[in-house]
Amino acid sequence: MTAGEQARATTQQPLAASGADDAFAAGAAWIEGEIVPVAQARIPILDTGFVRSDLTYDVVSVWQGAFFRLDDHLARFERNWRRLRLVPPLAREQMRTILIELARRSSLRDAYVAMIATRGVPPAGERDPRRFPNRFYAYAVPFVWIQRPEQQAGGVHLVVARDTHRIPPTSIDPTVKNFHWGDLVRGLYEAYDRGGALGALSDGAGNVTEGAGFNVFAVVDGVVRTPAAGVFDGMTRRTLLELLEREPLAPLRVAALPLADLARASEVFLTSTAGGVMPVTTLDGAAVGDGRPGALTRALRERYWAAHAEPRWATPVSS
Amino acid sequence: MTAGEQARATTQQPLAASGADDAFAAGAAWIEGEIVPVAQARIPILDTGFVRSDLTYDVVSVWQGAFFRLDDHLARFERNWRRLRLVPPLAREQMRTILIELARRSSLRDAYVAMIATRGVPPAGERDPRRFPNRFYAYAVPFVWIQRPEQQAGGVHLVVARDTHRIPPTSIDPTVKNFHWGDLVRGLYEAYDRGGALGALSDGAGNVTEGAGFNVFAVVDGVVRTPAAGVFDGMTRRTLLELLEREPLAPLRVAALPLADLARASEVFLTSTAGGVMPVTTLDGAAVGDGRPGALTRALRERYWAAHAEPRWATPVSS
Repeated sequence: MTAGEQARATTQQPLAASGADDAFAAGAAWIEGEIVPVAQARIPILDTGFVRSDLTYDVVSVWQGAFFRLDDHLARFERNWRRLRLVPPLAREQMRTILIELARRSSLRDAYVAMIATRGVPPAGERDPRRFPNRFYAYAVPFVWIQRPEQQAGGVHLVVARDTHRIPPTSIDPTVKNFHWGDLVRGLYEAYDRGGALGALSDGAGNVTEGAGFNVFAVVDGVVRTPAAGVFDGMTRRTLLELLEREPLAPLRVAALPLADLARASEVFLTSTAGGVMPVTTLDGAAVGDGRPGALTRALRERYWAAHAEPRWATPVSS
Repeated sequence: MTAGEQARATTQQPLAASGADDAFAAGAAWIEGEIVPVAQARIPILDTGFVRSDLTYDVVSVWQGAFFRLDDHLARFERNWRRLRLVPPLAREQMRTILIELARRSSLRDAYVAMIATRGVPPAGERDPRRFPNRFYAYAVPFVWIQRPEQQAGGVHLVVARDTHRIPPTSIDPTVKNFHWGDLVRGLYEAYDRGGALGALSDGAGNVTEGAGFNVFAVVDGVVRTPAAGVFDGMTRRTLLELLEREPLAPLRVAALPLADLARASEVFLTSTAGGVMPVTTLDGAAVGDGRPGALTRALRERYWAAHAEPRWATPVSS
């Protein structure tokens, strides 16, 4: 069985031998020192993480019982909360312990584990965010697929929104992972209206950026291309770039990707922790290449899933 | 006592005769059919209103026991959730009843009453936001001052951020009230770093837009000016425009407001439900006019607070 087939075959079965607690089968959350079933997990309505979206977050996957690149996610998360001048109430090592414990408690072999640092709840009468006690939340839920493995053979129908542009980096730094998804959601609704399943946004200057939770890659004139700036440095994107550096299946160019080049690409694919490497088979209603997942896309998907077994990137939940 | 003096004299005293419940003294919230003390009010961590900031909201003030322009706020709120294709679980009339009840239960004579419509919690395994059951939340808390009345004599020290621009309308429609405040918070931190108390953002093309929860006005060559587009149509802004139409204290021009004009303005002031009309006395460290609140600013503040007594705009809490 190839790694890709394993990916497609894996289901959401709890670990039978772990003494799984049913209340946690749908996931577990860490809320202010307590681990609770995710369905009961709630945050204060006055947390400025909600009423200002003043937060950063990260999401790491657990795949076949092991975290993938846990420490890389934690390092990126710390960089980002420092950029927002947040000081979470826990050290990175404590967060790490909590994330592992959440995966263990939820008994999910394949999970999506989120960590969130918020500005927190203002003390009574206080409006200066520098004086809010910052908060940390985390939760583990069953692995989320943007596109389920059985759908990936058919490929994604992608639409590039015409009327909505990605929030520019001069307003919001896209590398500080955030929930300012209004533009992405607007793009998704436009995609639905135009017969697509997912939407990507341009930068308003003729280049593609990213979509709701994924990066965009294209193969143009035999070169693998993805935008360099104005996008999140997704961990799946980063992994593919590292894998391509180690084993150059094709030349790579990380630079602005014009919509005109995207339109004539022989292959297009999306990358996300929530789904890995997802082939795009139609773009704005027209077939990409021969309308089937391309050879480079399939090869990179294979390598991406195989990389999950590399010890340097795997942190077993049960360790 | 003038309306302005009344505004400054009013405090956060609960209504003595209302049988106030202490648990609700800090505010009350409506969470899925129940009214709870605001300190206990929590929302699901998986609500996409939090983990996507996929929502719209509105805030209406209660002043001296009466809502100010309650139905105008509700109309704007409805327009905005329709724009996001949200379908809250309650009709507008039910929301109205809840808001009044929250103000009544909290026993606050001066309150800040928020209503929020979110995309809601995804059903298990569902990623299509069109199939999420949308939610409605609301809460009443003690009146929030961006700048307290006793500080308004001194005026605001305002800084226009250099490195951060307002999210453009091609990405997020600023007239659909939202919590995408990352740019505004970044501007506020830049203001702090440069000795200011509040920050405003430009549009990246040399015009001022707005700040964290307020609109910007300036008096330039005797003309009252405020930006026409790329900003939220705040209710305090709208009220001033209507009052100026009824009683033209000065010529009015609603159009792009260049930073160069702002810099040479004889008066600058900010408008917000959380504070009314707030004079700006320094801009980027330099005195505005003679460095004291200007005559037009004071006249408009007076008229703004006096307008709270107009029956067409007042909805008594106890009615």
